[in-house]
Amino acid sequence: MSGGSVVALAGGVGAARFLNGLTHVLAPERIFIIGNTADDAEIHGLHVSPDLDTVTYTLAGLADSKRGWGIRGDSFRCLEALGRLRTEIWFQLGDWDLATHLHRTERLRQGARLTDITAEITAALGVRAQIVPMSDDRIRTRICTPTGELEFQTYFVKRRARDKVVSVHFEGASEATPARGVIEAIAGADAIILCPSNPFISIGPILAVRGIREALQYKRNRVVAISPIVGGRALKGPAAHMMKSMRLRPAAVEVARLYADFVNMFVLDEADQKQAVLVEKLGMRPIVTNTIMRSLREKKSLARVVVRALEIDA
Amino acid sequence: MSGGSVVALAGGVGAARFLNGLTHVLAPERIFIIGNTADDAEIHGLHVSPDLDTVTYTLAGLADSKRGWGIRGDSFRCLEALGRLRTEIWFQLGDWDLATHLHRTERLRQGARLTDITAEITAALGVRAQIVPMSDDRIRTRICTPTGELEFQTYFVKRRARDKVVSVHFEGASEATPARGVIEAIAGADAIILCPSNPFISIGPILAVRGIREALQYKRNRVVAISPIVGGRALKGPAAHMMKSMRLRPAAVEVARLYADFVNMFVLDEADQKQAVLVEKLGMRPIVTNTIMRSLREKKSLARVVVRALEIDA
Repeated sequence: MSGGSVVALAGGVGAARFLNGLTHVLAPERIFIIGNTADDAEIHGLHVSPDLDTVTYTLAGLADSKRGWGIRGDSFRCLEALGRLRTEIWFQLGDWDLATHLHRTERLRQGARLTDITAEITAALGVRAQIVPMSDDRIRTRICTPTGELEFQTYFVKRRARDKVVSVHFEGASEATPARGVIEAIAGADAIILCPSNPFISIGPILAVRGIREALQYKRNRVVAISPIVGGRALKGPAAHMMKSMRLRPAAVEVARLYADFVNMFVLDEADQKQAVLVEKLGMRPIVTNTIMRSLREKKSLARVVVRALEIDA
Repeated sequence: MSGGSVVALAGGVGAARFLNGLTHVLAPERIFIIGNTADDAEIHGLHVSPDLDTVTYTLAGLADSKRGWGIRGDSFRCLEALGRLRTEIWFQLGDWDLATHLHRTERLRQGARLTDITAEITAALGVRAQIVPMSDDRIRTRICTPTGELEFQTYFVKRRARDKVVSVHFEGASEATPARGVIEAIAGADAIILCPSNPFISIGPILAVRGIREALQYKRNRVVAISPIVGGRALKGPAAHMMKSMRLRPAAVEVARLYADFVNMFVLDEADQKQAVLVEKLGMRPIVTNTIMRSLREKKSLARVVVRALEIDA
């Protein structure tokens, strides 16, 4: 195989880090990224797509990697003024970042598809990989807690992901259709990579869109997943905490178990080497390597291990 | 009479300057300002109310008086980023200013009235005078030029008011009702002041709202207008140019003529002293004074002349 396309299922920061490495190992034009949109939200009337933007800004070299969201060097003057107008401002929006949401919201109102708008934004920012939302339909993650259901960003940002999570569901997912090109991309891909993203709130919603999980099952021997859990902790975000409150052991193998029907290879960290045999018992090939991505060198190194395991030409 | 209320009909910059002076001469709480909303526009999907904002920012002490719009010291980072996304950015929006439009748009979408939103904004910014839009209904100035009709901001900002103006009309005005309190304020006012604003595109739309002109006619002996034309030129904006292209002589008396049915006193500049007799012939009492407002001292001085002419207690 040579020069074929690689599909990546992506959430936010963890995925963006890995994809940053991957675009240095494979030509970005070969990478088709399916982004989670279930954590999209309407903030001050604007359509915000946090995961799409995190991946876009990262691949455009604009991300604030330290903070994990938004654009490096951005200012917060509009937000400051919104506060002066006594508007709730728990969701941080930078002035540059705001332009993305304004543009997206306006284009949606004009009737454009999120898929096309995302393509416009990524093109304008010089991103060469293709970033496609999982669906153009509205899908929203709802978090069930012991005291009631929460809209995702309320749970995640406003309440800092501190609530116990009883279950997660994706409003609209069962009626949603995948965005144009998504199923075709999976069907035609040389390989499919599940980025190290939260299995419940990042990869989960993508899999919940009608037809996507089935399309992946057809390609099972070409699908690899990277564990977002290392040594019982999440690389980023609330995955481990969520697993615990849903009575799952926060372990790489438990993530593997969620994917067993459509994932053939499972990348787990050296810290979790002992779980390799358990992954094997699930019928998956374990790949043990360093999955912590602090530097570009580490990102590229992880990407190289994955590409090698998939036996695709770099 | 003592401590009664004064109603002002206001456009943008010229009105804001005068009102700035007036709030130093009368307690701001006594001033009820009816603002023009026919130059409102949807910019990047946001509801922008340029005249309401110019008056609000001026009375809040935030206005960029040099530039004539927006907030002093504002930055344009969001606009800059919108440009990067290849969005048309001929309408300048500062980052602080943007918060006003975001807030207004979001509240409108929630079903709030522009009247209430304006009250919220002015309260938050510490404006003590009452600023009320002429109507909560959608009214839009359309400019007829020899080559076709233009949306107001396209004529005014994008094309820099350079087109020949054949006529002006106010889409929606005839079906619109005045905002809550407007007619009552006029009926109960000790005096009514037409600020030195463009008679066609600032005062004109207010007068076009059903019932407002009639309410003013009832109060004719309490109504004063300040000429926006001095020495054949507009104090600010395209008034003189518009008069010429509509085959009117750009003269103070021609403005007076437009108001003869409901204005009792007409303030004209010393430069136009010779027109005083013509104003008198229209059945109005001419008041000649300096109407150029470069400094706060000049603004206050003009306000004092007007207040004195109206025989209301300062």
